[in-house]
Amino acid sequence: MKKKNIVFIAKSLDGFIAGKNGELDWLHSIPNPDNNDMGFNHLIDEIDAIVMGRTTFETVCGFEVDWPYRKHVFVLSNSLKNIPEKLEQKVTLINGTPQEILDQIYERGFFKLYIDGGRTIHNFIKEDLIDELRITTIPILLGGGFPLFGDLTNPMEFELIESKLFLNQIVQNHYKRRK
Amino acid sequence: MKKKNIVFIAKSLDGFIAGKNGELDWLHSIPNPDNNDMGFNHLIDEIDAIVMGRTTFETVCGFEVDWPYRKHVFVLSNSLKNIPEKLEQKVTLINGTPQEILDQIYERGFFKLYIDGGRTIHNFIKEDLIDELRITTIPILLGGGFPLFGDLTNPMEFELIESKLFLNQIVQNHYKRRK
Repeated sequence: MKKKNIVFIAKSLDGFIAGKNGELDWLHSIPNPDNNDMGFNHLIDEIDAIVMGRTTFETVCGFEVDWPYRKHVFVLSNSLKNIPEKLEQKVTLINGTPQEILDQIYERGFFKLYIDGGRTIHNFIKEDLIDELRITTIPILLGGGFPLFGDLTNPMEFELIESKLFLNQIVQNHYKRRK
Repeated sequence: MKKKNIVFIAKSLDGFIAGKNGELDWLHSIPNPDNNDMGFNHLIDEIDAIVMGRTTFETVCGFEVDWPYRKHVFVLSNSLKNIPEKLEQKVTLINGTPQEILDQIYERGFFKLYIDGGRTIHNFIKEDLIDELRITTIPILLGGGFPLFGDLTNPMEFELIESKLFLNQIVQNHYKRRK
């Protein structure tokens, strides 16, 4: 099976994925009357499972919507001991280093993965375990917050695969790791 | 005269304009056999003058090329007392707050300005004095360095005017401040 780890995320013009106080409202600052999903469902079609950090999991659980994912979700956490009963078939807790996590997920038969959540993305990029970045840029400067990218020891080159425009305001670029 | 302050700059995928040790070589990491200037000369046609910080001025002076600007350059500095003799007709030293600097430049009859240099850009954005951002993204994660954007007290919304692709790898987005 072809393995692939994909990041799909929206950031501000200045590179933040959440505001100084965790704000996410700016993600909806561009009117989207037809609820264009900007490739989200296409991504979910493509992947086998989703890997996310505990904070992202808890944020999604806090949204007043039904569980939004139709693929299996692995939640990375050293502290969570169990998940809400109604999600038991849909969510698996997992922990370890990024490579240990991937090995456990591959053993269960999931190979194409959507990697989500700020700290999780940082940790996977740091270990050079991300194959594709699909980055959607909202035209706003937040001026602070949680950055999409963290420190790296060495630069990493990427190759632009595609650049798309949504709602006439939002640019989404797909990059593949150049190795 | 219509006043306008434009930032035209290249950044890495993670938002840096220079590497951890000031490196700029990554700006040329995408082969550019025909020396596509990615809109630089068009920008220079459009503007009346260039405003840059001392560090950028000294960096340009250090390049082993002739003086590259065909419009007047204002160099912001509190410490520089004079400029090289051969540039006396082309460069003017200036200091003050961003607004004081603009007022001095307007008095001399220059209204459309290209604002350049990391700290200068930070200071002008902080005072909400930038009308247009033209940002070229090189597909590389530097992992650290001098960031294009700094902290802000409040978010600032922009409007996408145009998104261009150069050399099949480099996306350049033009944004206008939404006020």
